[in-house]
Amino acid sequence: MTQPFKYLGQGRPLIEGREKVTGSARYVADLTVPGMLHGRLIFSPYAHAQIVSIDKTATEALPGVVAVLTAEDLPTKAQKMTSRSSAILAKGEVLFAGQPVAVVVAETAELAADAAEQVVIEYEALPAVVRLEEALQAGSPQVWPNGLPTHEDLSQIHASVEREDQGQDTRPNNVSAESHYQRGDIAAGFAASDIIIERTYRTSFVHQGYLEPHACVAVPDPAGPGLTIYTSTQGKFIVRDEVARLLALPPRQVHVVPLTIGGSFGAKYGILEPLTAAVALAVGRPVCLVLSRSDDFLTTTPAPAIIIELKIGARRDGAVTALQARAWVDNGLFNFNHGGVIGTLLGGIYKFPHIKIDTCEVNTHKPPIGAFRAPGAPQTIFALESSMDDMAAALGLDPLEFRLKNVAETGDPTGAGQPWPSVGFKKCLEQLRAHPVWQQRQAGPNEGYGLAVGGWATVVGTAEAVCRVDSDGTVSLEVGHVDVTGNDSSFVLIVAEVLGVEPEEVVIIHGDTTGGPYGPMSAGSQVTYSSAGAVNIAAQQVRTKVLQVAADHFEAAPEDIELVAGKAQVKGVPDKAVSIARLAEIARFRRGGPGPLVGAGQAAVEQNAPAVSVHLVRVRVDPETGQVQPLQYVLVQDVGFALNPLLVQGQMHGGMAQGLGIGLYEAMIYDEAGQLLTGSLLDYALPRTDTTPSLETVLVENPSPYGPFGARGVGEPPIIGGAAAVANAVKAATGVRVTSLPIHPEMLWRELRQLKNKNLDNL
Amino acid sequence: MTQPFKYLGQGRPLIEGREKVTGSARYVADLTVPGMLHGRLIFSPYAHAQIVSIDKTATEALPGVVAVLTAEDLPTKAQKMTSRSSAILAKGEVLFAGQPVAVVVAETAELAADAAEQVVIEYEALPAVVRLEEALQAGSPQVWPNGLPTHEDLSQIHASVEREDQGQDTRPNNVSAESHYQRGDIAAGFAASDIIIERTYRTSFVHQGYLEPHACVAVPDPAGPGLTIYTSTQGKFIVRDEVARLLALPPRQVHVVPLTIGGSFGAKYGILEPLTAAVALAVGRPVCLVLSRSDDFLTTTPAPAIIIELKIGARRDGAVTALQARAWVDNGLFNFNHGGVIGTLLGGIYKFPHIKIDTCEVNTHKPPIGAFRAPGAPQTIFALESSMDDMAAALGLDPLEFRLKNVAETGDPTGAGQPWPSVGFKKCLEQLRAHPVWQQRQAGPNEGYGLAVGGWATVVGTAEAVCRVDSDGTVSLEVGHVDVTGNDSSFVLIVAEVLGVEPEEVVIIHGDTTGGPYGPMSAGSQVTYSSAGAVNIAAQQVRTKVLQVAADHFEAAPEDIELVAGKAQVKGVPDKAVSIARLAEIARFRRGGPGPLVGAGQAAVEQNAPAVSVHLVRVRVDPETGQVQPLQYVLVQDVGFALNPLLVQGQMHGGMAQGLGIGLYEAMIYDEAGQLLTGSLLDYALPRTDTTPSLETVLVENPSPYGPFGARGVGEPPIIGGAAAVANAVKAATGVRVTSLPIHPEMLWRELRQLKNKNLDNL
Repeated sequence: MTQPFKYLGQGRPLIEGREKVTGSARYVADLTVPGMLHGRLIFSPYAHAQIVSIDKTATEALPGVVAVLTAEDLPTKAQKMTSRSSAILAKGEVLFAGQPVAVVVAETAELAADAAEQVVIEYEALPAVVRLEEALQAGSPQVWPNGLPTHEDLSQIHASVEREDQGQDTRPNNVSAESHYQRGDIAAGFAASDIIIERTYRTSFVHQGYLEPHACVAVPDPAGPGLTIYTSTQGKFIVRDEVARLLALPPRQVHVVPLTIGGSFGAKYGILEPLTAAVALAVGRPVCLVLSRSDDFLTTTPAPAIIIELKIGARRDGAVTALQARAWVDNGLFNFNHGGVIGTLLGGIYKFPHIKIDTCEVNTHKPPIGAFRAPGAPQTIFALESSMDDMAAALGLDPLEFRLKNVAETGDPTGAGQPWPSVGFKKCLEQLRAHPVWQQRQAGPNEGYGLAVGGWATVVGTAEAVCRVDSDGTVSLEVGHVDVTGNDSSFVLIVAEVLGVEPEEVVIIHGDTTGGPYGPMSAGSQVTYSSAGAVNIAAQQVRTKVLQVAADHFEAAPEDIELVAGKAQVKGVPDKAVSIARLAEIARFRRGGPGPLVGAGQAAVEQNAPAVSVHLVRVRVDPETGQVQPLQYVLVQDVGFALNPLLVQGQMHGGMAQGLGIGLYEAMIYDEAGQLLTGSLLDYALPRTDTTPSLETVLVENPSPYGPFGARGVGEPPIIGGAAAVANAVKAATGVRVTSLPIHPEMLWRELRQLKNKNLDNL
Repeated sequence: MTQPFKYLGQGRPLIEGREKVTGSARYVADLTVPGMLHGRLIFSPYAHAQIVSIDKTATEALPGVVAVLTAEDLPTKAQKMTSRSSAILAKGEVLFAGQPVAVVVAETAELAADAAEQVVIEYEALPAVVRLEEALQAGSPQVWPNGLPTHEDLSQIHASVEREDQGQDTRPNNVSAESHYQRGDIAAGFAASDIIIERTYRTSFVHQGYLEPHACVAVPDPAGPGLTIYTSTQGKFIVRDEVARLLALPPRQVHVVPLTIGGSFGAKYGILEPLTAAVALAVGRPVCLVLSRSDDFLTTTPAPAIIIELKIGARRDGAVTALQARAWVDNGLFNFNHGGVIGTLLGGIYKFPHIKIDTCEVNTHKPPIGAFRAPGAPQTIFALESSMDDMAAALGLDPLEFRLKNVAETGDPTGAGQPWPSVGFKKCLEQLRAHPVWQQRQAGPNEGYGLAVGGWATVVGTAEAVCRVDSDGTVSLEVGHVDVTGNDSSFVLIVAEVLGVEPEEVVIIHGDTTGGPYGPMSAGSQVTYSSAGAVNIAAQQVRTKVLQVAADHFEAAPEDIELVAGKAQVKGVPDKAVSIARLAEIARFRRGGPGPLVGAGQAAVEQNAPAVSVHLVRVRVDPETGQVQPLQYVLVQDVGFALNPLLVQGQMHGGMAQGLGIGLYEAMIYDEAGQLLTGSLLDYALPRTDTTPSLETVLVENPSPYGPFGARGVGEPPIIGGAAAVANAVKAATGVRVTSLPIHPEMLWRELRQLKNKNLDNL
């Protein structure tokens, strides 16, 4: 393939854009399968309680009610509860408010909902630990008095960064895991520092805020013991394997069909599927389970609140010296390791010669946490970049120049000690430095600019792709991933480029989970990076065969054939052209030929390609109310090579909005009894178009040496630095250093009043 | 792979044998899909009539009846009727008794059946041509007065043999196609002959006699505009394409899922599927259509009656000289070309230097004919081998030696003029000559031995196969064919051999028709021959990757690794072993490794491999009743290489029984009005265990130079010569030369009486 490309690198709308904006896309909740029943979950109202009795007799007698099922009624009853997906229905005890206890199955969703209210469940409340600080206290109740359940936890999907878990048994109360990172001599580092800044940062539980709540339809296979699961997921193989494990079926008997996904951001790896599958097998009919928005807030896996104590030092000359941190992550019910990300980023973005970082994963009687786009990174960067900004101010340095002087380069160690592979921190900072918005920055009254650097290691997986030309001329590309963010709309460009067809003519097939191509989960910003190479190889194999069959057809040499507009033609002789449909037919019947026009590519990229984002936000703060209004947002990101720049920009826009949400609006608030107080979109504030400023994206194309076409992952970096940049902008605008997220107007107003009073005192 | 094989070449039972014999196999009629409706067809009672009116009002009002549909109600209404599969429901006119006119759709099969009797259809009978001879007469009614419908006829699936269709428009009445084959100088040939035998042979319509009548369930796709079709078919891609064409859907929206098939023998390529699919889309619900045995006899595609006028000559020295033939094939309603097979075999099995063969395809108002295992061959061989037997007798030669002297060898021309590729006629005859049954043959009273040679060009197609090791250790092989005869039970041996697992551990996956591997139709004895190479390549690719990952794992060289019992181990160090499951998992996450453990093979064998069968049958004839009892049957067949000899023998046994059926029992009898008189198994006699003698098979392994592992096709040859051998045995036992099939006792008794009278006259 010779540069310049005809399609690659050119922005092209989402394949499914039209159906999405016109509302014709089919989501799981739109499915109607003949004979389908509807399930309604009954959730625990207690954060911790014994289930004394469940009386379902009266409910089961209601017309239209097929069954009221508890854990004992399901084929999964013998399974151990070790993760959110295996916490199918509670057994004996409930461990968070919102834990599913029973499910009512009825002919319609309305009947199921009405009937669910009739089920009488008697509980005996038990002491609950809800607050992280309380959980850590010696003598407070133990969430897992017999130790954390040990089954392999499938939610460990972001384990792309190494961690050192020393597995001590001297852990504090309710701590399920610790990580420790160190380099240099931390005491000596601080001793050599001229300025030290020490501060504690706190963040809130936030929800992934996808538009589409969890939904699943499970259909028992009419021709066998297995089932087909239509669902909204990021990873069909992980869902297949987990459902198969919990239902004790061979994985090949579980077919997972991901439908259009209305957002996920890390939360959709199988929360409802094992439950829905178990219910469908129990009643022997198709079953649909759709969470309401409130259900979803209650029972899914939010991002954790994290407390970070951070101490950094620097010399007068502007060189950073030492970084020490302790972090506590509120994991809710199960373990999910954020320590690796916290350590990698805290100790890795700047060239601190001395670091010491200790992290703790803490259990509480709250919903188990899960992944949320760059899990742990926004919280970590909020802490790091707030302190770095203050350090620049303390040193009297320009915040960008201070960062540029200290930022890590390729080969420098991450916080976990490995060298950064090719990484573009400097390039992105330099691009921002040269950008007109930075050059001409000028804050109006009550305004300020805030800067933050984010980085993400990204994940690498392996992938297959199968490309075919069918006898009707359909060019298909079969892949194993789930398209959450538009990967398919990039992959068709590769196939179009290689086979000389219009991208619109390439049909993407998402292979069956039995016998279809393997692909990575749509997680860790990896899909394009890990898969595009396999797509290219598969298409190139088909190209070779097409050229061979065409060459035979025209009695020419393959190198004299060109592929143009769905035809193979002799170069310079457009009269001598034959459609690839016809060539596919010829190939199917050509004895001794290359066989059917198919190519199978595999990819296993050698190395990850870190992706860097630099965030610049301008805000205005209303001094009378503490309300923060973001006015401008520029995101500079190293994308390696943008196969389809329109989609990369779309990802960046979404991440920028979410970063602002984390910074300014979003928090899941639990009361002391573990009750969620923000269980609807009336109480939980997501960023909206009217709260989002104009977003400007700058794509830095610093090619990855390993990624296909030089690409890097792009999904996660955009969310990482928004909250930190907002906090720094607020500081610039007001002088108030915010140490907890989100920046509530009330909180900021109090701080502003305090600062004003202090300033008055100082007069 | 080094000989000797561990699994290949060893007989191993059918994978699905247990579920078949225990009755747990799921056939289409066993399916229950939630919300499924049942269809019942209403057939034309006339061979030719105008449909005056269809009154469905009263029927549609019956409880449980969802709809009564006619051609106008279906999404296929604009489609032209050009073949049995596109003759979905009659429009205006019916053209054979048994043609579907309307379908009643109801909540249960019983309701549909009852309701179907209430539909009032008024017909106006039109003149019908039923008998072949009548159809040919000038002035008789034309089946297609405006010419035969011209759309590409998908039933031309056996067109592996070339034909010369000169497309004259001077054809006799109701003749839709002619073929003409010639070599040498036919007049000179006969002039040089010492003996000439001239005779006319007739055969009957026979039915494929599969145990499972046609059945289909069509399920509209809950997530899209397409549908899934569960069916009993030999070719999922041909069914997909035909349904898609008739429903005007892209082929990728039609998913064809072949279930366990209860026999087919050439008849299952889409008779019910377009109709069922159209009905399901019309009513928007899953629809099941199952034919009763009588429905199936009425409305499917039997094998044709053929009339062959055959004249052969030979010299005193035993060398054949000239062969002249005219053949008329009763095609019923549509065109299906048997001329190619008739010409190829009549003019190709022996080295006649001079041939002239003319064939006519004739239309009548009877059901359209279709393929039946080696279509045309049993009829042709019956004619040829009867005359050859008589010629040997007339020359005073041993019938085996006479054949051996004249039989074609590799490179000799077939009747169609191409040279036979590597062909084993002589080897098989020599094997029989050496066989104890032949050596020690001794006919008892009223007994005789009959010999016949059969040959079949076999078809070659292309195929793909994808082999994977999944992370749970499942070794899967994804293929594109439909396993009708046990191919899968051979393919698992290849994979087992290559990957060092037990054959029982290899899971066969029949890929989806959208995006799954392409495979040939299960027709023309081609599946193993065309596909086994692709299977081998795919497995070998996986082997290479497994060795590579294992070598890395043990820090050894790939050549030091061996695959044993699902493990890779260092040769001679069984302690150093790792399961292939673990290696699959490693490969999925190994950066820079070979990627997922998958291999994709394609095959396009260069040349067909003719398969030869030599049949020896001993019969006893009851002179008082004309009843023929087969006593012994030896079949010698060139199978090239038997990947799984047990399955090859199974195929041979079935074909032998069917050949005896064609010779002795089977005939579909139509009366002068075109009414089928033999529409049930009470009237239509299939061979039974108590009419079948002990069957002995001799596998000649004369390796095909092109086929994978030397294999040849084996499906069709066993049926070819049985009827001819029986006729020759009857001649040997009684002196009566039978010239029409089947050999009814009544007919033979009349011949015996005539012969006796003639002998008495001669006294």
